[in-house]
Amino acid sequence: MLLACRSIRRRPITLGSSAFVRTADRPAGRRFNGTAAPNQTSDHVIFSGIQPTGIPHLGNYLGALQQWVKLQETSPATTKLIYSIVDLHAITVPQDPQQLKRWKREAFATLLAIGLNPDRSILFFQSSVPAHSELMWILSTTASMGYLSRMTQWKSKLSLPEDTSPLDGGSKSKLKLGLFSYPVLQAADILVHRATHVPVGEDQSQHLEFSRECVTNFNHAYGPHLVAPKTILSPAKRVMSLQDPHLKMSKSHSDPRSRILITDSPEQIHSKIMSALTDSTNSVSYDPENRPAVSNLLQLLSHFDPQGRSPEELGVVYANLNLRNFKTTLAETISSQLSPIRKRYEEVMAEDDGAYIDHVQRKGAAKARESAEATMAIVREAVGLY
Amino acid sequence: MLLACRSIRRRPITLGSSAFVRTADRPAGRRFNGTAAPNQTSDHVIFSGIQPTGIPHLGNYLGALQQWVKLQETSPATTKLIYSIVDLHAITVPQDPQQLKRWKREAFATLLAIGLNPDRSILFFQSSVPAHSELMWILSTTASMGYLSRMTQWKSKLSLPEDTSPLDGGSKSKLKLGLFSYPVLQAADILVHRATHVPVGEDQSQHLEFSRECVTNFNHAYGPHLVAPKTILSPAKRVMSLQDPHLKMSKSHSDPRSRILITDSPEQIHSKIMSALTDSTNSVSYDPENRPAVSNLLQLLSHFDPQGRSPEELGVVYANLNLRNFKTTLAETISSQLSPIRKRYEEVMAEDDGAYIDHVQRKGAAKARESAEATMAIVREAVGLY
Repeated sequence: MLLACRSIRRRPITLGSSAFVRTADRPAGRRFNGTAAPNQTSDHVIFSGIQPTGIPHLGNYLGALQQWVKLQETSPATTKLIYSIVDLHAITVPQDPQQLKRWKREAFATLLAIGLNPDRSILFFQSSVPAHSELMWILSTTASMGYLSRMTQWKSKLSLPEDTSPLDGGSKSKLKLGLFSYPVLQAADILVHRATHVPVGEDQSQHLEFSRECVTNFNHAYGPHLVAPKTILSPAKRVMSLQDPHLKMSKSHSDPRSRILITDSPEQIHSKIMSALTDSTNSVSYDPENRPAVSNLLQLLSHFDPQGRSPEELGVVYANLNLRNFKTTLAETISSQLSPIRKRYEEVMAEDDGAYIDHVQRKGAAKARESAEATMAIVREAVGLY
Repeated sequence: MLLACRSIRRRPITLGSSAFVRTADRPAGRRFNGTAAPNQTSDHVIFSGIQPTGIPHLGNYLGALQQWVKLQETSPATTKLIYSIVDLHAITVPQDPQQLKRWKREAFATLLAIGLNPDRSILFFQSSVPAHSELMWILSTTASMGYLSRMTQWKSKLSLPEDTSPLDGGSKSKLKLGLFSYPVLQAADILVHRATHVPVGEDQSQHLEFSRECVTNFNHAYGPHLVAPKTILSPAKRVMSLQDPHLKMSKSHSDPRSRILITDSPEQIHSKIMSALTDSTNSVSYDPENRPAVSNLLQLLSHFDPQGRSPEELGVVYANLNLRNFKTTLAETISSQLSPIRKRYEEVMAEDDGAYIDHVQRKGAAKARESAEATMAIVREAVGLY
């Protein structure tokens, strides 16, 4: 849910100081922005979701998926990791059913390809766990219409101004209940697994705040049964379009050269990087204000730099290269870093003609159902449903 | 859902000509208002629901439950009968969890007591079948906010005027998503079982119309997979308060003498009838305009009259009785008709200290899940969820 939400956002995100400190830098005692971090002693539950809307691009990967893997690698064994492909959210906007099926499979293969281990992290399709919808209904009985109407997502998805009301002339005819009530399902996704921590981009913090509001409403009515999730703010990695450094890299942009997919071949990556927008100065320097396009490429290189150097440092390192050679270096760096992901993706997709994915997702769904049912037993008892 | 909805309705219902012809009168070839009736040849599915809000009163029984039994007795074996205790609807208004649990059990016992046979009719708690919530979400993605905002139920439940908008000052602070979106869950209740016929009171026809709208929306988006349910209009049996013949008999009325519960003892029935409001003329005549209270009692007698005589006829038959003797006759008639229900209710409640109800409801839930899952398989495939 996080990824697709971000890609459709019309306003540029305001990035605060990076909150998530790379675990490689600080292997212990790391801190998350304003929240307690998962630590070695307690039973934390980390939940996040991704919409099945095609192969993720670099923005998705660097903005969220990469962090999922890091959390898997660095969390203690007592931390439960739950990552969902939130297909029920995908249908809040019209979808082609055949394409949605394909995208679901591709999204699942992507999670395996980036290094999520289904024996460590619970990977599943949201629609395989009915408790998500069940809890959504129960939460909706204490969720305020007024609060929902003030949320911004349905407005941005319908390209409506932020001061639109759900029943204004413009939105009334277009707005479906599912798009309007989506934050409640998102809250259910999190709460049904008793997630303690949710990694999100800054632009998603409104939704996590709403999830906490759902906890408050439910617990006020029925007792302290649901857990308020804390935010793990994702590292603020701006990944901008290769064709327009003022726009975020986005799946919805018409020009496929504007984005690199994490399964792109070296040839595709090379071709897209070589055709990336630059400027008329044929040299490298980091100057976001005057040279946004070249600076964007330096940022991209920084994200993939094995030595973790900043764009500023890299601007100095590559100052003597012309743009063509710099782009070649960038393309090769990205290709080599994505190479294992692409290889694994192809293996997964080929393996047993998809039966492997089916097998893994069924196992994940069973674990997710168990996790969700434990919460639902508490919820049903509290509400008086049995 | 039908019963509790009716009991909270503020406006008097406008009764049309009775559409459902008693099956005893016309055992074959009977017709329903504007719809094909369940007949001997096709696979009809009849669905209806009742909210667990305490022991039903005579208004509930004569207005709906009695018809459920009649449908069971007269439908061909190929007709599937599905009756649900819709506990997920009950929580659209605040409930005491312990009371809700008790009410659920009492409602289930009532269905058995009135003569529903769990081997013939599927009897189950809505919350035991997750597919109701799942389909609700899927339907909500194609359900119009504008249409829902025009529906009247949430306004009447919040005692708001009919021209209120969900986001007006008055409703904004009170209105919860669950109450607003309730008709979509009601549609899911019906559609998930592919119900072809739904017995409803006239005041519920708006909701059934909305269910058909949900079918249209879904089928337009995904193909002709859902079945549009037809209305079986319930016999228009006005059952008015014993204390005010201008109000419907209602669970929410503060004076318990205003209603007779179907498990009331002969003593309770006698006491309530004897204290029923009448007028200063100490004789019996059917004159709804000038003698509404006495006419109400004659209507009540007519509903229970073994010979099926009309209130007019009964007014003539009992013209020579004084009110006290007439009331005694009425109380005895009602008592004797309700006697088997009361007896069976007490047996069911006593039987094995509730384990019998648990046993029966589990069997019903399993059948209902099977019925719902068959639809969900079609729906998930159509939507592209798998």
